[in-house]
Amino acid sequence: MTLRCISLLTFFASATIFAQKKNLEVDQDRLEARIFELAKFGLQENGETERVAFSDADIEARKWVVQTLKTQGLDVSIDFAGNIIGHRKGQDATKKVISFGSHIDRVPNGGNYDGCVGSMAALEVIEILNENNIKTRHPLEVIIFSNEEGGVMGSRAMSGHLSSKAFEVENTTGFSMGEGIMRLGGDTTKIAQVTRKKGAMAAFLELHIEQGGILEKENLDIGIVEGIVGLKWWDVVFTGFANHAGTTPMNARQDALLAAAKFVVAVNEITNAFEGSQVGTVGRINAEPGAPNVIPGRVVASLEIRDLSSAVIEKVFQAIKTEGEEIAAASNMTIEFLPLDTTANPALTAIEIQKEIEVATTKLGYTFKYMPSGAGHDAQDIATIAPTGMIFVPSKGGISHSPKEFTSAEDMANGANVLLHTILALDKKLDE
Amino acid sequence: MTLRCISLLTFFASATIFAQKKNLEVDQDRLEARIFELAKFGLQENGETERVAFSDADIEARKWVVQTLKTQGLDVSIDFAGNIIGHRKGQDATKKVISFGSHIDRVPNGGNYDGCVGSMAALEVIEILNENNIKTRHPLEVIIFSNEEGGVMGSRAMSGHLSSKAFEVENTTGFSMGEGIMRLGGDTTKIAQVTRKKGAMAAFLELHIEQGGILEKENLDIGIVEGIVGLKWWDVVFTGFANHAGTTPMNARQDALLAAAKFVVAVNEITNAFEGSQVGTVGRINAEPGAPNVIPGRVVASLEIRDLSSAVIEKVFQAIKTEGEEIAAASNMTIEFLPLDTTANPALTAIEIQKEIEVATTKLGYTFKYMPSGAGHDAQDIATIAPTGMIFVPSKGGISHSPKEFTSAEDMANGANVLLHTILALDKKLDE
Repeated sequence: MTLRCISLLTFFASATIFAQKKNLEVDQDRLEARIFELAKFGLQENGETERVAFSDADIEARKWVVQTLKTQGLDVSIDFAGNIIGHRKGQDATKKVISFGSHIDRVPNGGNYDGCVGSMAALEVIEILNENNIKTRHPLEVIIFSNEEGGVMGSRAMSGHLSSKAFEVENTTGFSMGEGIMRLGGDTTKIAQVTRKKGAMAAFLELHIEQGGILEKENLDIGIVEGIVGLKWWDVVFTGFANHAGTTPMNARQDALLAAAKFVVAVNEITNAFEGSQVGTVGRINAEPGAPNVIPGRVVASLEIRDLSSAVIEKVFQAIKTEGEEIAAASNMTIEFLPLDTTANPALTAIEIQKEIEVATTKLGYTFKYMPSGAGHDAQDIATIAPTGMIFVPSKGGISHSPKEFTSAEDMANGANVLLHTILALDKKLDE
Repeated sequence: MTLRCISLLTFFASATIFAQKKNLEVDQDRLEARIFELAKFGLQENGETERVAFSDADIEARKWVVQTLKTQGLDVSIDFAGNIIGHRKGQDATKKVISFGSHIDRVPNGGNYDGCVGSMAALEVIEILNENNIKTRHPLEVIIFSNEEGGVMGSRAMSGHLSSKAFEVENTTGFSMGEGIMRLGGDTTKIAQVTRKKGAMAAFLELHIEQGGILEKENLDIGIVEGIVGLKWWDVVFTGFANHAGTTPMNARQDALLAAAKFVVAVNEITNAFEGSQVGTVGRINAEPGAPNVIPGRVVASLEIRDLSSAVIEKVFQAIKTEGEEIAAASNMTIEFLPLDTTANPALTAIEIQKEIEVATTKLGYTFKYMPSGAGHDAQDIATIAPTGMIFVPSKGGISHSPKEFTSAEDMANGANVLLHTILALDKKLDE
């Protein structure tokens, strides 16, 4: 045995050890490049991208996604709600599909990462599986949901919760949802066919940016989502008496804005007073008549409460309502809480999928925490029909729905790796 | 001497005593009828009157006023600012004029008494003097000021304080002030000629409804106005950070509306904490971006402070500013106070005229109190060029700038009587 042979043997031994240690990994550069490529659809002169659902930019971006999925050998179709579905056969035709994906439409003046990271990571997972000639037992499915930002349209249709009333709602493109579905290649008359039965999918996974600042603040790589918080909205109406700000003494006023201001402070204090991660927000306020020299006679303020538990939302609301009524009564005013039709129920993710995400995360050497998702996602509706998991990656500065939204290439790749390994683990474990 | 003669003598004696006791009085029914007649100009189908300055209704009402003043033998002219001037000669041509009047234009959706009571009472005073063949020493002048509600236009021009910039300001009629002046028969190019020299008038008196609820609440007939409060306006800007209301924990928020709400409460508390009758008001508020699911990143709220003393306004403002800065700093936000160009300086009425109003009020057997005027009036500008007095009568429920505005015929007549007797007293006393 020559020295050269020993060297070669040593090399092969090392390579084997390396292969055992080294996990299958996504291509970070390719993933980042795809994010940038996707950001070109709707790119404006100011360097920012506008791609609201149903816009020409949305349609062009979807064409590119369809083409790219096809290039990866997927059987691509568009369902009647405009969802893009890319199907990859499994070894066992009797197995249910493992689905994963997100969305590529954006809020007006939004960022490049919300939805796009999960969508491009899903594509990257397929590409890695192809490159490594891995054929899963279960069929796999990439889903790019239609119009997430304008009412989680595609996922709501798939879960059977899309009301036909919603077809009339216009977004900033000027198209109604009904028109938009047609533009995306869907068909409102056949939308019911999009609905999947509960249990039809083996699992659904969504990777998404956190859109909050917790992971970054705590210097963590991965968020394992326990569930997507539910939310309720109200219009809170204070009725006092509008009067001349010059001639009405301070002690003779029924100032609806003063009462509303006390209420805004109370919403904050009460929401903070309960243990837990519930949030309460007054984001909109309107004082009437709204002139500097007139004491406001009527104020309408929004109230939003979110939590993983409907019972907590109700408990916080009751405390806020009681305090609001006391504030109004003390000021000789009336207060009304008008529920708005924007309720979303909390959606819990599947414990067994949470566990698989944790195993994959740990195997890959990433730090993590369990956390709720404060934002709504496609996973929220899909959780009502399939065991669902959600993976978060950090958002720089907690900024989202803004051109300043940013997630590093490394963070995106970490999330995609967790997605990949969770899919592979579920593929092995799940048995229908 | 027969019994009949004795009776007649007794009658004459009684009549003489009665004449000595009985004060000259205005005709309450006629005054009220004129208020109703004036309210017909701009009367709408819903029974309410719209008569914003420069409107057709304003022009028609002015024609009627001009005609009615002429019928009373006045020499009527319209000055270059559109003020209607009705002149009545005095016995002594060397005497300066004693002026009195108010305005007949109204705020949008206003009432029948604001300005109209003082205007119709001025006409009634003339009619009573005519009927009683009373010729004053001083010439008298009824002034119906133009466009009081849209920036005290006529009185400001008369006092030399009307900026040509104001010509561009449109009111709800769609006419700019410049166009409006032309419509009223004025001439913007000659507006400077309207300005009167300080001391050119012997006195100016304005009767007006209180527009507040103090006289009614205290069951008083007459308010003797000590002065018209000055006011200052600011836009107060809170800058926090707009963020997702679902994903941003309560303790990581820079909620500009929460800070603004604390500020609104503070404005009320601080204004109340000082002794005196100053008022502080936040009447307008705007939270951006203004969606129920977004934490407001920026709030602009108005701040108005009024008082008879500029020093008090400044003192209250400084206390509010300090507290606002503390609220902002405690929430890691910025606050800015941007002064708005709506400052009006306090205008004190003449002490000697206040005294004459008190003497007349007491002689007529009315109850009274000295009080500031919280609202701006034509008298405010005229006070800078002439010794000025102002008489208030009660406003039912303190309601003004509303179709619900009401002052009883008796209260109006009481005010007109005080106006009449103050004019007669000043005519005797004043000597230039």
